Amino acid sequence: MEATPKLGILAGGGSAPRELISVCRAQKRSFFIIALEGQADTDLMCDASIGLGAFGKLKKICQQERLSEMVMLGRVRRPSVAELKPDFLGIKVIAKIGLNSLGDDGLLRSVSKAIEDECGVSIVGAHDVFKELLTPEGVLTKVGPDRQSQKDIKRGFKVVRSLGSLDVGQAAVVQRGLVLGVEAIEGTDALIARAGELKREGGGGIVVKCAKPQQDDRFDLPTLGPSTIDCIVHAGFVGLAVESGRSLFLEREKTIEAANKAGIFIVGLCMEEKDGE
Amino acid sequence: MEATPKLGILAGGGSAPRELISVCRAQKRSFFIIALEGQADTDLMCDASIGLGAFGKLKKICQQERLSEMVMLGRVRRPSVAELKPDFLGIKVIAKIGLNSLGDDGLLRSVSKAIEDECGVSIVGAHDVFKELLTPEGVLTKVGPDRQSQKDIKRGFKVVRSLGSLDVGQAAVVQRGLVLGVEAIEGTDALIARAGELKREGGGGIVVKCAKPQQDDRFDLPTLGPSTIDCIVHAGFVGLAVESGRSLFLEREKTIEAANKAGIFIVGLCMEEKDGE
Repeated sequence: MEATPKLGILAGGGSAPRELISVCRAQKRSFFIIALEGQADTDLMCDASIGLGAFGKLKKICQQERLSEMVMLGRVRRPSVAELKPDFLGIKVIAKIGLNSLGDDGLLRSVSKAIEDECGVSIVGAHDVFKELLTPEGVLTKVGPDRQSQKDIKRGFKVVRSLGSLDVGQAAVVQRGLVLGVEAIEGTDALIARAGELKREGGGGIVVKCAKPQQDDRFDLPTLGPSTIDCIVHAGFVGLAVESGRSLFLEREKTIEAANKAGIFIVGLCMEEKDGE
Repeated sequence: MEATPKLGILAGGGSAPRELISVCRAQKRSFFIIALEGQADTDLMCDASIGLGAFGKLKKICQQERLSEMVMLGRVRRPSVAELKPDFLGIKVIAKIGLNSLGDDGLLRSVSKAIEDECGVSIVGAHDVFKELLTPEGVLTKVGPDRQSQKDIKRGFKVVRSLGSLDVGQAAVVQRGLVLGVEAIEGTDALIARAGELKREGGGGIVVKCAKPQQDDRFDLPTLGPSTIDCIVHAGFVGLAVESGRSLFLEREKTIEAANKAGIFIVGLCMEEKDGE
């Protein structure tokens, strides 16, 4: 057995899978990309693709490629029943899981458990494999948060943690003490755009992202990348605070460069310390 | 002194002030309407109007009309500094309050305190004067919530209470266990419209409104009326649950009729019981 076995990447939408691939390449780790049909970006270079209900096909791929570790990464819209098209094993798995009344987190946990049980792979987090994808602690840009932004960050984290503990959302926008918007399932970019239109006078305004306290870190860690900065610039806010160690920082150099160019700050904050305050 | 003194109504935007006026008329209570310039609906029949910074003018009106009780009612956008145009007393009051970094609730409390101190009136809640404006308990429509909606209502109230305790928002939309959206400052109608676009398969979907646990009930109680039902119908959700006793139910007959016509439920729930669960 190799020291670092071939990594399976089960890819949903967005740039996160591509990012993981480039880290694999840089580290010369072999990988095998399985695109989720109708979810992964169409220009993702994949080795195979499967429908969302194709557990049988996935099992076969895992066996043929001798995959023992797999990362599930990227955005997955909840499919319609018509889209599921389960194969034989898929029907069995779906019957076992049930698809009713589950929050997104619960569903992801059940699906990954089923993949582990049926396909004989371990589902791991992208950050378990590549620590460098995680957001580091500290001010990552030329400018840092001023006093007002620091207060807003504190308020934002408090709000997001509270929402997160109820399995609702991972982000909020705060301007001069006023919470302009909180995220549920619309996604951070949509939240930032909306909050931009509700902005008050007086300047400032920050975006906060942090993981749900109880969430399984193998799935759906908060993600930041160039598009996050684009949204913040477009909405006219001044910075971004993310939980360090529990968020994926995509295209880090490019993102920080864009932030510096716009005079926006990015800061990674350790939540354990914050909670202790 | 009269048993029921003339009621001052300091009117912001929306239909709430008009509603209170019609209740006054029905009860033959005399009233005096002071429209907030740039905030109150332009077609509101008012007895006087004042700018947001015109504390001196307001004081004069209160004295001339012998107002001892006043209700502040209706939507007030936070004004720009240019819009404030304070008069002499206004400058004094604004300097005392300060306008920085206050959440909306804090600002309202400070402003009403200043009005009470400077103008010699008591600021009361609309519902203190007219109990019939409050939402009653129970199912108010022909149909009530089914089992799934009951679960969603429970989840929604939990989320909104948690947000409310952080002085963030008063509403959420839940569908089959999934929180589609939570309100910050965008207003419930905007929340419902947004959540409608994020709706999943499977039907259902309910809107929950409740007051912030710690809020001063004289201001900004959650409000429902015909437009709330319009929004719910348009978004394709099945019902509305509101906190009974701590929300204003505007144009009740018309609203219930619209809900019945659309097959939507409205239910008033007592929060004290819910909290005890």
